[in-house]
Amino acid sequence: MQSFSIIIDTVQEELVEMEKCIASIRKDSSNNLLKVLDSSLQGGGKRIRPVLTFLSGKFYSNDLHHLIPMAASVELLHTATLVHDDVIDKSTIRHGHPTVNEIWGENKALILGDYLFAKAGELCASTGNVRVMQLFCQTLGMMSLGEMNQAFDAFSLKVTREQYLDRICKKTASLFVLATESGAILSQTPEESTRILRDYSYNLGMAFQIVDDLLDFLSTEDELGKPVGSDLSQGTITLPVILLLEHHSESRLVLQYFENRGDFETKERVLESIRIFPIIQECYDIAMSYCIKACRNISLLPNSVSHQALIDIANYVVERKK
Amino acid sequence: MQSFSIIIDTVQEELVEMEKCIASIRKDSSNNLLKVLDSSLQGGGKRIRPVLTFLSGKFYSNDLHHLIPMAASVELLHTATLVHDDVIDKSTIRHGHPTVNEIWGENKALILGDYLFAKAGELCASTGNVRVMQLFCQTLGMMSLGEMNQAFDAFSLKVTREQYLDRICKKTASLFVLATESGAILSQTPEESTRILRDYSYNLGMAFQIVDDLLDFLSTEDELGKPVGSDLSQGTITLPVILLLEHHSESRLVLQYFENRGDFETKERVLESIRIFPIIQECYDIAMSYCIKACRNISLLPNSVSHQALIDIANYVVERKK
Repeated sequence: MQSFSIIIDTVQEELVEMEKCIASIRKDSSNNLLKVLDSSLQGGGKRIRPVLTFLSGKFYSNDLHHLIPMAASVELLHTATLVHDDVIDKSTIRHGHPTVNEIWGENKALILGDYLFAKAGELCASTGNVRVMQLFCQTLGMMSLGEMNQAFDAFSLKVTREQYLDRICKKTASLFVLATESGAILSQTPEESTRILRDYSYNLGMAFQIVDDLLDFLSTEDELGKPVGSDLSQGTITLPVILLLEHHSESRLVLQYFENRGDFETKERVLESIRIFPIIQECYDIAMSYCIKACRNISLLPNSVSHQALIDIANYVVERKK
Repeated sequence: MQSFSIIIDTVQEELVEMEKCIASIRKDSSNNLLKVLDSSLQGGGKRIRPVLTFLSGKFYSNDLHHLIPMAASVELLHTATLVHDDVIDKSTIRHGHPTVNEIWGENKALILGDYLFAKAGELCASTGNVRVMQLFCQTLGMMSLGEMNQAFDAFSLKVTREQYLDRICKKTASLFVLATESGAILSQTPEESTRILRDYSYNLGMAFQIVDDLLDFLSTEDELGKPVGSDLSQGTITLPVILLLEHHSESRLVLQYFENRGDFETKERVLESIRIFPIIQECYDIAMSYCIKACRNISLLPNSVSHQALIDIANYVVERKK
């Protein structure tokens, strides 16, 4: 597997500019806000979404003057939703660092998330492009819808595969689509190619989240930067558990864990069942089917320096271990 | 004092259209979201902010096609911030109704607030005007900054009058400015008049919040639709308490209340001190000075059907009892 930093070699300079753009929001911020802001910008993420914005821009005019703030906007929108997600899940650790709510309390984390939405919106508006502004707002709405469905479905064993796919489409793939489509729009990409890039990023986002949800069970705490099986602890049913319930009638075990939350032994038994049954392979097969569709999308695009990187990212997303 | 409904008589038809526009966001919303959304749209508010948008639009082109979604956007942004404020303050009641967090829990209220930001942003973007989009995002950022300062200053007796005025400028006046300035911009108002309307709404917003903070001590629970003295219970120091601390060295009493939260008797003694000392008049004098400046701003504007209503609103804001 290629390392991610090699894959994204063609956009390294753009990423440096984007980091400067993100850092520049510190100058608008008061002392109080800065303290909390800095806990959220420590990063640790792969910046995969802004990479998509830059790569998508390279098919046509590659207008960096607009792509840089847009990429920063996408990354800040992502950060804002993570900050709010951590409040919702009462998570104490992410990417190996304590979360904003852990350091500063839930209220300040909630307010910081709102502030980051605002700053992400400002950067997006600075492109002067109404269409990407609309897409930005629609994406935030979509992500909130996905989060709301997840909140209503918590600790319910009735979640179907379709409901799961709909939720990750809203929560994850929609932001991959914003990242990619905005890059295309801001580079005067023709409608047909924009549509193909949108399809690509939808498929990529779906594959990404399915693997993410699987790694939550397979990885180690060190690799994840947070406890293993944390989705299950939050009552969030993801694909591995849905497959377990579908095929192996292990509902009783999961139900028992939900009824008796925090029961380490039952959780271990659920994790073990997922590892024993052929669920892991089935999840990978589903993720791979999205990855193949994503690569097929790319083959329909005109030639460009981004071509190979977009294919490599699709493969990376399925092959990665964290 | 004129009733608010008589003052805003000239924009009644526009308000009906705005309510339809707000109601239309229900159609985009899934079942789960709808249930939570409806708890937040029950209203009970005076819609003063959208009224300002419509009145500001009447000086020039009065382009209702854009003013209606903009007014709805401003009202939804206001609603979103109230929903998040109630989570932060753990408020159980607002306008006499249980809050979203009280009915649905903090997590769903947090997510609903995010969704409302998105819908407010979409409506704003539907005007196709980049300048109002930028203003919208700047306003959300400003309001979050004000809220963050309030969170850091909670239960601190060191808050100065200047810090208080800065906080209410960010938290309240900025949204009044968005409401008014966006109405002016979308109606092709010349820069000079737009600037005057911005000054008017800043002064109006300051007067509004100072009176609001005073009514929190003077009103009854029935009139407020929430408990009396709730700012103090949250540890939020507002102008009446700052004046008490400045002039009458009653710090010990407030400190005692903060140290011993929920102590009904000490709270009553603080409320009594505020009522006994000449603090109420001093607060009204400060609010009135902003009201006078607001009216002076209006006198500089060209004649219009909105003229009298904007002056009446400034007076209403200071004279109202709830």
